[in-house]
Amino acid sequence: MTRDLPALAETIAGRDVDGYLIDADWEDPTQLYLSGFTGPDPFLTLYADGGVHLLVSGLEYARAKRESRADTVRRHAEYDFQYGGRERRLDMYADFLADVGVESVLMPDRAPVGTADGLRDRGITVAVDHEDAVASLRAVKSDDEVNRIRTAQRATESAMAAAESLLSEATVEDGTLVHGGDVLTSERVREEIEVTLLRHGCASEETIVAGGAHAADPHDRGSGPLSAGDAIVIDVFPRDTDTKYFADMTRTFVVGEPGDALRERYDLTVSALEAAIDAVEPGATGEDVHVAACEVYEDAGYPTLRSDPDTDTGYIHSTGHGVGLAVHEPPRLSMGAGELEPGNVVTIEPGLYDPDVGGIRVEDLVVVTTDGCEVITDYPKRFVIE
Amino acid sequence: MTRDLPALAETIAGRDVDGYLIDADWEDPTQLYLSGFTGPDPFLTLYADGGVHLLVSGLEYARAKRESRADTVRRHAEYDFQYGGRERRLDMYADFLADVGVESVLMPDRAPVGTADGLRDRGITVAVDHEDAVASLRAVKSDDEVNRIRTAQRATESAMAAAESLLSEATVEDGTLVHGGDVLTSERVREEIEVTLLRHGCASEETIVAGGAHAADPHDRGSGPLSAGDAIVIDVFPRDTDTKYFADMTRTFVVGEPGDALRERYDLTVSALEAAIDAVEPGATGEDVHVAACEVYEDAGYPTLRSDPDTDTGYIHSTGHGVGLAVHEPPRLSMGAGELEPGNVVTIEPGLYDPDVGGIRVEDLVVVTTDGCEVITDYPKRFVIE
Repeated sequence: MTRDLPALAETIAGRDVDGYLIDADWEDPTQLYLSGFTGPDPFLTLYADGGVHLLVSGLEYARAKRESRADTVRRHAEYDFQYGGRERRLDMYADFLADVGVESVLMPDRAPVGTADGLRDRGITVAVDHEDAVASLRAVKSDDEVNRIRTAQRATESAMAAAESLLSEATVEDGTLVHGGDVLTSERVREEIEVTLLRHGCASEETIVAGGAHAADPHDRGSGPLSAGDAIVIDVFPRDTDTKYFADMTRTFVVGEPGDALRERYDLTVSALEAAIDAVEPGATGEDVHVAACEVYEDAGYPTLRSDPDTDTGYIHSTGHGVGLAVHEPPRLSMGAGELEPGNVVTIEPGLYDPDVGGIRVEDLVVVTTDGCEVITDYPKRFVIE
Repeated sequence: MTRDLPALAETIAGRDVDGYLIDADWEDPTQLYLSGFTGPDPFLTLYADGGVHLLVSGLEYARAKRESRADTVRRHAEYDFQYGGRERRLDMYADFLADVGVESVLMPDRAPVGTADGLRDRGITVAVDHEDAVASLRAVKSDDEVNRIRTAQRATESAMAAAESLLSEATVEDGTLVHGGDVLTSERVREEIEVTLLRHGCASEETIVAGGAHAADPHDRGSGPLSAGDAIVIDVFPRDTDTKYFADMTRTFVVGEPGDALRERYDLTVSALEAAIDAVEPGATGEDVHVAACEVYEDAGYPTLRSDPDTDTGYIHSTGHGVGLAVHEPPRLSMGAGELEPGNVVTIEPGLYDPDVGGIRVEDLVVVTTDGCEVITDYPKRFVIE
């Protein structure tokens, strides 16, 4: 069952420690990736000497033995730990490390300080992995992982289609969208998206359905009635409840007549998306891809964070990010970001924002191939819903 | 906007530090409770001198100003931080602390070690809060908070009713449950529960629908066809997507004839539940409540973790936990747990487990009142579905 993790072994050797230690529950993607175990409470995963070793509670033991990728699974009872408090727990952790023959560990930057300090108090050297070595491993996907993301993306597209249907079926009364006799709200569209995701084996509770001024804030999830003529940004990024892999896509729609300002911004955003996708290939940097999108906007006279770091309007975020067991993970597509490799799965999501005009964002998911990239997203780009 | 947090001020004074610092995203309930802000990326919240101070990215600034409970909100741009790496970020954090006049902080036990070490490197004293002071504050709910939990609980009951309907409508073919022409599986029932939750403004992706041997493992979410005569444990613990408060309830059903062993275990579990609820009052300890449940099982000859710490069957978990912005939070109802206070909201969830017989668990939610407790759960306890 041992996984082939040579890069992690190199990292450990480079930092002159014996092992890599994670103290987290499965929602930490690094924990899930290394352990392969969806334990709901925090547990320890220790990678050392080419092997993966778990320490879990009695409640998780049978399932961890059955489902995890670990070479060995130990349980708290082996260390006579049951109702003990913090000090006894840390004694157990130190004993567990000793049993695997480990005297020094690297822990992730966001590992619990209480655990790190407690192990240090017990004579164990704890170094901190500021580079997030496991996230770097995760950034390069196997074919199986890409297929899991594809499956989640198909569910995402079904959910987007459900949302688009609601918008298509809506009528307009006094400028407000109405569906089935009720005012059509962001909340109603979000509910339809999330129900459709569930019916397709995915889950999300952070879907963005933002119209008008809401859409001008990229992190506003949206609320209230949707209006004709407003740009409506729909950003869906669910996790497959089975495989735990994410997908991510965004479309922007207008019901009725968008007006020239929105239409220009939409067309420009699709151009920025295409330019950025064209720039994706092995050896290109995440910065190259980001710059390709920025240049489209800057050439048209819109500010970007590159041309004006203080701008509140225009293109005010990066071009994308890796997607996998986390919805945001390496590689980044932004200033200073490094080289892309085959197997990277990244979103490309340029957008323009202005509270006086609204928000536009269009996002596709791509996988870097040996000679360019393949667009995973299979969904039309229709802006205007008549 | 300042919140009244005298207990936290006392904790800080007792540890001889200037402030309490959180570096986490909103999914950390301590962060959400102190900041009142649902920032999707990690941000800093500093409680010092009676005030709450936030440091967020430019992307979150407007929303944090509008929605958070903070007295002041600062953004990265005020510290000229944009594309900087780790060292520049930590410089910014240190400058932010200095601006609030803070030279020493307490951080939660599970705060990121990278942040704690980085601040220490910059001359800031970082002590670790092993007692989880904010979780202790969270354990005592205001009336508003109890009402938010009640709302989530009503949604939970609607979802349980949807599950019970599926079971009631099922027919039996060769011992297997069939619904609408298809074999009725754990996955199908879970989907119905989670869709119903979404329709009622709640979300969950961890619902347990476990039959037969699956149900004998309290953490097994269940999978595959459900059978007549098997105990089916359904444990639903969603979060309200608006208020972010959780609810939690469990029922166990049998379609058809349960047999004497299951029937005895079910009746005993309801007795244990009633005994534990009777024990809940201000001044009683979490241990008292747990012992009340254990005694019912032990008197009937079943092992508990109290009577046999190594047992794999019988009553193999604690009696309950607080519910609020986290689904598991203080107070605990287990050996060594302290005194209950009015405003505590706790689950009472005794159960019996044996791979050869199946699993039984019944769980109600109660709020501790000035003279006892009030059961929040409003759902019948029907075991056998004919």
